[in-house]
Amino acid sequence: MDWQALRQRALKDTKRAVATSVDDDNLITQAISAMEDVDRAANTLTRRLREWYELYSPEFSKAVDDNEAFVRRVLEKPREEQLRELGLHETMGADLERADVQESERLAKAIKALREERDQLESYLDRVMLRRCPNVLVLAGPTIGARLLREAGSLKRLAMVQASTIQLYGAEKALFRHLKTGAKPPKHGHLINHPLLAKAGKEDKGKVARALADKISIAAKVDYFKGEPIGETLKQQLEARFG
Amino acid sequence: MDWQALRQRALKDTKRAVATSVDDDNLITQAISAMEDVDRAANTLTRRLREWYELYSPEFSKAVDDNEAFVRRVLEKPREEQLRELGLHETMGADLERADVQESERLAKAIKALREERDQLESYLDRVMLRRCPNVLVLAGPTIGARLLREAGSLKRLAMVQASTIQLYGAEKALFRHLKTGAKPPKHGHLINHPLLAKAGKEDKGKVARALADKISIAAKVDYFKGEPIGETLKQQLEARFG
Repeated sequence: MDWQALRQRALKDTKRAVATSVDDDNLITQAISAMEDVDRAANTLTRRLREWYELYSPEFSKAVDDNEAFVRRVLEKPREEQLRELGLHETMGADLERADVQESERLAKAIKALREERDQLESYLDRVMLRRCPNVLVLAGPTIGARLLREAGSLKRLAMVQASTIQLYGAEKALFRHLKTGAKPPKHGHLINHPLLAKAGKEDKGKVARALADKISIAAKVDYFKGEPIGETLKQQLEARFG
Repeated sequence: MDWQALRQRALKDTKRAVATSVDDDNLITQAISAMEDVDRAANTLTRRLREWYELYSPEFSKAVDDNEAFVRRVLEKPREEQLRELGLHETMGADLERADVQESERLAKAIKALREERDQLESYLDRVMLRRCPNVLVLAGPTIGARLLREAGSLKRLAMVQASTIQLYGAEKALFRHLKTGAKPPKHGHLINHPLLAKAGKEDKGKVARALADKISIAAKVDYFKGEPIGETLKQQLEARFG
């Protein structure tokens, strides 16, 4: 292959890499936002389903706090079984016709389908981030990682901003309240949902968030400049310190 | 059948009728609220889908205003056909991988399923209202009728309140603004979506709303006291006057 052809090839590859990378940032932003919207829709509809189903089986709805479990079990178990599991012999719910109960069960099915779509979107997010920013993915997970990338606007910007900015993405409201009224400054935004922060005691959360943001910042730089994989190492360092 | 047995039977029937009627008011309230929630969820997700799909086929999204048609046609037609229909040879959209496009199409499928659930809820609403308040149903249709019944709290109350109250159900905010600031009083609330009001000129809407509310009030009384069907007659009177 001569010099000219090589140059052409490299140019084409680079252009294509640029085009692909731009799209991936957009795809990640769209996928995480879609996932959040689907999630919110499923939760709103589950609240509605609860209110409706409580006409029929109020004790069961009160007993099952978790929204996802509630919907699943409405579909799995008839009312008699729900009551038996709770050790009850009768219900305060109305004796609705089967046809009326079926309507609420159909709503439950629609909610279940939304949850499945949500899970599909999450695994898609995982795939796109694996090809776009594998190191950020390892450290932050698909949901938090995608939110940080969305706030930054692109992987490029996520690689450029200070770690302290990453630490506070998602806490803009609290930050401006702090600047305006002198209220306590926020210690974390989207990072609050990270397993390491969930595990940390209240007084350590700020410290963990700062360390995590530092590592994510490094990971974003490595991802953007296509460096050697470093995510696992960074993650182990964090876990050794706070895990 | 002796007197005693007859009395027992009548008592049982009445009790059962009362229980059934209470449930139906609740069922109507739940069904209309579920329908509204599902509708809102479908619209939110369609806005999200548009934003996402515009990365790929922006001209098509701009060309199809109607949300429902947009979702349907995303699923029916590949991008080349969408463009051909618009008389375009190329798109400003990115050349996404098929796998990436499929993700947005799966979201479109989820939205389509929600719309189907919405339609199912509407036809259920229609069935319950047909057994509970057939005359109100004829005059107001399932959606407006159910909203009025929900605002009233029960068919009983809908039969008792003044027609002017029915006229303003759904316009509470404007009413209180009127009372507080002396702004113009509202002329209609939920009734604004009725075909007769849609047809009426701006200056007639108040008059039509008042007449419609009068007739709905009569229909609600007949429904509550189980009188002879009167909905069609009332409807024809309205149509003769305003249709």
